[in-house]
Amino acid sequence: MASSTTKTPPVSIDNINPKVLNCRYAVRGAIVSHAQRLQNELQTNSDSHPFDEILYCNIGNPQSLGQKPISFFEQVVALLDNPAILKKQQTHSLFKPDAISRASQILEIMPGKATGAYSHSQGVKGLRDAVAAGIQARDGYPANPDDIFLTDGASPGVHKMMQLLIGSEKDGILCPIPQYPLYSAAITLHGGSLVPYYLDEETSWGLEVSEVKKQIEIAKSQGITCRALVVINPGNPTGQVLCEDNQKDIVRLCKEEGLVLIADEVYQENVYVEDKKFNSFKKISRSMGFGDDDITLVSLQSISKGYYGFCGKRGGYMEITGFCREVRDEIYKLSSVSLCSNISGQILSSLVMNPPKEGDESYESYTEEKNTILSSLARRAKILEEAFNSMEGVTCNRAEGAMYLFPRLSLPTKSIQAAKVENIAPDAFYAHRLLDATGIVFVPGSGFGQVDGTWHVRCTILPQEDKIPSIVTLLKAFHQNFMNEFSD
Amino acid sequence: MASSTTKTPPVSIDNINPKVLNCRYAVRGAIVSHAQRLQNELQTNSDSHPFDEILYCNIGNPQSLGQKPISFFEQVVALLDNPAILKKQQTHSLFKPDAISRASQILEIMPGKATGAYSHSQGVKGLRDAVAAGIQARDGYPANPDDIFLTDGASPGVHKMMQLLIGSEKDGILCPIPQYPLYSAAITLHGGSLVPYYLDEETSWGLEVSEVKKQIEIAKSQGITCRALVVINPGNPTGQVLCEDNQKDIVRLCKEEGLVLIADEVYQENVYVEDKKFNSFKKISRSMGFGDDDITLVSLQSISKGYYGFCGKRGGYMEITGFCREVRDEIYKLSSVSLCSNISGQILSSLVMNPPKEGDESYESYTEEKNTILSSLARRAKILEEAFNSMEGVTCNRAEGAMYLFPRLSLPTKSIQAAKVENIAPDAFYAHRLLDATGIVFVPGSGFGQVDGTWHVRCTILPQEDKIPSIVTLLKAFHQNFMNEFSD
Repeated sequence: MASSTTKTPPVSIDNINPKVLNCRYAVRGAIVSHAQRLQNELQTNSDSHPFDEILYCNIGNPQSLGQKPISFFEQVVALLDNPAILKKQQTHSLFKPDAISRASQILEIMPGKATGAYSHSQGVKGLRDAVAAGIQARDGYPANPDDIFLTDGASPGVHKMMQLLIGSEKDGILCPIPQYPLYSAAITLHGGSLVPYYLDEETSWGLEVSEVKKQIEIAKSQGITCRALVVINPGNPTGQVLCEDNQKDIVRLCKEEGLVLIADEVYQENVYVEDKKFNSFKKISRSMGFGDDDITLVSLQSISKGYYGFCGKRGGYMEITGFCREVRDEIYKLSSVSLCSNISGQILSSLVMNPPKEGDESYESYTEEKNTILSSLARRAKILEEAFNSMEGVTCNRAEGAMYLFPRLSLPTKSIQAAKVENIAPDAFYAHRLLDATGIVFVPGSGFGQVDGTWHVRCTILPQEDKIPSIVTLLKAFHQNFMNEFSD
Repeated sequence: MASSTTKTPPVSIDNINPKVLNCRYAVRGAIVSHAQRLQNELQTNSDSHPFDEILYCNIGNPQSLGQKPISFFEQVVALLDNPAILKKQQTHSLFKPDAISRASQILEIMPGKATGAYSHSQGVKGLRDAVAAGIQARDGYPANPDDIFLTDGASPGVHKMMQLLIGSEKDGILCPIPQYPLYSAAITLHGGSLVPYYLDEETSWGLEVSEVKKQIEIAKSQGITCRALVVINPGNPTGQVLCEDNQKDIVRLCKEEGLVLIADEVYQENVYVEDKKFNSFKKISRSMGFGDDDITLVSLQSISKGYYGFCGKRGGYMEITGFCREVRDEIYKLSSVSLCSNISGQILSSLVMNPPKEGDESYESYTEEKNTILSSLARRAKILEEAFNSMEGVTCNRAEGAMYLFPRLSLPTKSIQAAKVENIAPDAFYAHRLLDATGIVFVPGSGFGQVDGTWHVRCTILPQEDKIPSIVTLLKAFHQNFMNEFSD
């Protein structure tokens, strides 16, 4: 009885929020939808494509590619999901003693000993204590649990800060280019202006303070006030690790210009080179003698990255310092509207900031699991970097940290013309061709932003090590064919 | 070295997003912050107040007040958080066989058998299949897993719909008054207009279609186009359960007026009276012969409510039907920007929609746990309702469903004047006095909206049953004192 008087549907592409329409998120964009279609086709007919499986190198999702979760973390979370077994004798045959004792300690600090209840809007106080202790141990400077907001991954922290700082398109947020597209997406959704500052590919994706200053002036001339500076360190998609002097310059700049420094530090455990070391921006600013009155700082951390890789558990935190009481109350209110982040993610956040210590029963296995993951990631980064650099017209900076390579492609003119015909960016054209030929999923550089006329792809270093040689072979063969097909 | 050249801090209450400033969320508002302060004072000095504990009746958070989680659900989630133990013999001494087999089945459908990885942006396909099957079994009409978006509780679904539908203050969202303040908060944050329609307290919080039509016309005269109608059924804070004829009228109205029907159905398991029954709006509209071309429908469900009460696990779903492909793609994109909801919450969503069945090893204990919770909630609702109705100047509709009572208070003029002096609403004045005297936390009705000049409080029915008599005693004594103190 679908009646003939049916009106136009109430919602169409023409009457939804234009900010939603304008938002882009390349990491799960067209190329990934296409990959999912191919995967479905392979499931129906394994001969439908010239490859047996889709190799997802588009997203930092290590456990989906076979990375084993850290056992200690898994055990503590499982015990707290079902605390009834904590006191049973049989539990000792399945769980390590320090996992049981850690879970018991955590249960004690849960209000009402309930692990399935809403918590304080910032997260369980005792878990924030643990996170603060972990930050303090990492930095050598005090951290306050009242400054910690436990979040479902790092993304909600980014959204909250954008929501807080952006009142109109006159509010600008300085973002590196290339950037992780969560930032551009969040700025678009909240109606602000992304003010780009370009990382210098020639100097290993160097961050030049002079470039940031120049962009602040350009924005000013357009009536845009820069409210915050986003720094991703280690870099995504670029993989660079900032050195201390550079970080100091950035802190000074933010202090002088009155910018909130939003430090995306989710890759803090992912550093692969001997000559670089992760320093939090809080540590750097405190080492310069700058306290709450000098610098307004947001540090983001996530359980999705590092050697932990618990993406699907959705945990993380933001540490906010240098905000006045009234503004903190507003941030608290924003958190309250979502009630709280999930408790298992909260627990994991406390664990990654306080892993087993020497002498604990799990310490040895924990250390081995951790080192196995990190040393393998370092090897994979190196092999893929060398592979890219061996390819015609490709240059690739080393991945000092994070989980990605972002090689630059000098694409033949004919391929650029062919892309134009298909009305997509040349690097998207390349990535689609790669996917169709090999099953490998890269994200086109245009999804992250890049200097006009340059083309890149982002490739994660996450496929398991035994798959890397075949990926390299497929990639090189595809690339050579592509270059031959479109040679000028 | 906090330097003397320090500038004004970059963020102050005067330069943040005014939408954030304007947003209110009473359920965790001033009264709750005050309660937390009192609790801290009690911890330091147990004699600091005329009560021993804070009785949180402000929020639907059952497990924090001692409600025991359903064992089967806990066991399945724990097993999947540590799948290594699934195949161990000792596991059988701690977990029920059907919990182990259900967990094993779920593990099989997880891509890469990884329970800690990001999922598809809508949630794991196999879990959405299970949710769709549960909806179909509930309604007797088909449900499509592609229409399901698994979410961290119900709130993210509300935010997404507001984000989608609201482009400016000219976009109106029809909300019941009284309403759950998530709606007013989300509408304010997204810059739309809340168009109120008043529930009729005299007819047990009846929803009159004529009232909705009147408000649509008033909005129109102010240049506001209503885009959606929010219905909370069973009602929060009002507790009414809509009858079928009323629901049909609402469906017809939405079809005629071109409104998206946003059905908040998170209390679908919480019905306490023999003469009422929950019907989903999807079932109602399908029973009227209306399909995707006739009605655009969003149904929200959460693992936080019902007899499950897993608030802190943050799980739920929205089922969207009647949206065109292009708009669905935009909703998918919005979900992608947050990557995915947490996997344990996704698993729990599949479980609450597919609990143990007759013949399963856990069926008996599951049924007993469930019935114990629901029958006790019904008794508590009745006792509290009668207590309110026995108090001078208080009238209280019965809680047919949900988890709240929303009694109306005829407050003495002198108390209203005293509230004015303190610059707070008279019901907030009452609630603060109650808290200071007894430790009981109610939310003032002004946080939910109410007819001008009427005053209410919202009280959950969640304190454990053995606490109810003392709550009633405290409440009655306080109320009598209050009425005496401010008698005209």
